[in-house]
Amino acid sequence: MPPKRLSAAEYATGIRAGSRTVLGRAITLVESTLPSDHALAQEVLQAVLPHTGRSLRVGITGVPGVGKSTFIEALGRYLVETKGLKLAVLAVDPSSQRGGGSILGDKTRMPWLSAQPAAFIRPSPAGSSLGGVARATREALLLCEAAGHDVIIVETVGVGQSETTVHGMVDFFLLLMLAGAGDELQGVKRGIMEMADALCITKADHGNEQAARRARLDYQSALHLFPAAPSGQVVPVLLTSAVDGTGIGAVWEVIETYAAATRTSGYFERRRQQQQLQWLHQSIAQALKSRFYADAAVRERLPAVQSAVAAGQLTPFAAAEELLGL
Amino acid sequence: MPPKRLSAAEYATGIRAGSRTVLGRAITLVESTLPSDHALAQEVLQAVLPHTGRSLRVGITGVPGVGKSTFIEALGRYLVETKGLKLAVLAVDPSSQRGGGSILGDKTRMPWLSAQPAAFIRPSPAGSSLGGVARATREALLLCEAAGHDVIIVETVGVGQSETTVHGMVDFFLLLMLAGAGDELQGVKRGIMEMADALCITKADHGNEQAARRARLDYQSALHLFPAAPSGQVVPVLLTSAVDGTGIGAVWEVIETYAAATRTSGYFERRRQQQQLQWLHQSIAQALKSRFYADAAVRERLPAVQSAVAAGQLTPFAAAEELLGL
Repeated sequence: MPPKRLSAAEYATGIRAGSRTVLGRAITLVESTLPSDHALAQEVLQAVLPHTGRSLRVGITGVPGVGKSTFIEALGRYLVETKGLKLAVLAVDPSSQRGGGSILGDKTRMPWLSAQPAAFIRPSPAGSSLGGVARATREALLLCEAAGHDVIIVETVGVGQSETTVHGMVDFFLLLMLAGAGDELQGVKRGIMEMADALCITKADHGNEQAARRARLDYQSALHLFPAAPSGQVVPVLLTSAVDGTGIGAVWEVIETYAAATRTSGYFERRRQQQQLQWLHQSIAQALKSRFYADAAVRERLPAVQSAVAAGQLTPFAAAEELLGL
Repeated sequence: MPPKRLSAAEYATGIRAGSRTVLGRAITLVESTLPSDHALAQEVLQAVLPHTGRSLRVGITGVPGVGKSTFIEALGRYLVETKGLKLAVLAVDPSSQRGGGSILGDKTRMPWLSAQPAAFIRPSPAGSSLGGVARATREALLLCEAAGHDVIIVETVGVGQSETTVHGMVDFFLLLMLAGAGDELQGVKRGIMEMADALCITKADHGNEQAARRARLDYQSALHLFPAAPSGQVVPVLLTSAVDGTGIGAVWEVIETYAAATRTSGYFERRRQQQQLQWLHQSIAQALKSRFYADAAVRERLPAVQSAVAAGQLTPFAAAEELLGL
């Protein structure tokens, strides 16, 4: 028997009271693509909205193999055990299939955290469209904040457009890197390094220390050539070993210092407001495009028009006008 | 008395015959925002379309003070005098006001090129919207190609979104930099360095040679840490002095080598097709947004909704739904 459907007020009360079951069900609700769930989900969000915004939102990315899960397990353990904080870990991975063994869908990759009452781990919502996955994750983030989590980690894989998406929903964006000569960067999308608020070289252990230190110097000089970050803060390069815990506390210190400095300067709050407005306008743009490309006449005509444009037989602007006139 | 209005066929014939006057008037036509000019402009473009696509399209950017005009004058002179090529110089600068003394609107900044029959220089179209300026420049580029120009340089200032726009309409993107400790980079937008197909340090002359060489080494190591360019080509760092002409020939060699290699690999043609399709879909997205935000009901409601979102009283997604339902 499936659990009885709760009212928006019951969801909100349960979340606020710290019920993990209700929080989990509320996230399932915002992830649902059923039209019948949609209005209720929006009602729940609206009800908890006054209780959101109080966490520190941290984005973490890095290519597969960089040790993201191990890093998050170590950082999370530090936050829970040493700092006494309540932590939620969310993920954005449009390629993940719930139950299909996706790297982000597997709770067992963070065994210690998974067993903690103070940590809430949720795999990436399933879905093929980044827009849908992003919306669900942003809304899950608000629900976790209303549930009183102090820190929300949003992780993503180091490929595709998902970094930009995660960057648009967090206060601090951390890029995990491996030490080495540069080859391991092939998988990192261009532009990601310039979005990072800090770089962290992982696996600086087991005889790898020297390579890690050299990589740190290299990245530091490279970052020095970059334009200043819009936050006004220096982008540090850190060394960590998740195995022996080296540098994990220093990472958290960097994040806390950043948050304090940008709160004082006003950048922190300004950026959050910008993110909210960006989300509004992106939602609108996406809805307008979905409607347009779902139109029967457009769908019928689009392939021929695209071929003509790609073949140089029709200017893109004339083609756009033709489709818009349908 | 204003010149008599030409027919689309007369424009096309005049352009193909190499008439600078007709080319100039055709560009004015595609730049026009008068609805009565619009259909004729599209007819002209469609008529010349089979004769476009044969030039090499080179984007050039750099902050004010980097010596962009002097560099383009020197490179252009090399192309015209030494290589015997026909060159057009276009610009994208949404902040420029025709006749208002904009840096990009002033022909006298390239005195030698301006006097050459083999060079055609056109200032940035006026306009406050980047979309409108970009469309006019893309269409002017096609007209210049139909007029038989071998090389089209599209220049832009190193600020704002205009680099991404220019990057989306050229085959090769060159970033001009000054030698120095990094302070001069403050004006370069984050992410631009990773779009560049080559970096070029200007003003490597007059006792500045040593700083320029050091900067080259720094940038080379920094670029080494970047992920590989999608073209598969190495991103070189070059030194030039526009005053004594040092390195100008080498810049052109790099561009030609790049074009040859990417033509062989198929990347060149693939990228052009992608750019055409991007332009199509961007034109559609922009038209959809313009229509939406021009709607009277949306205009009336938008300020209140934006305030509520920024103040955290309404979720962005709920706000988008409300506006989309108007």
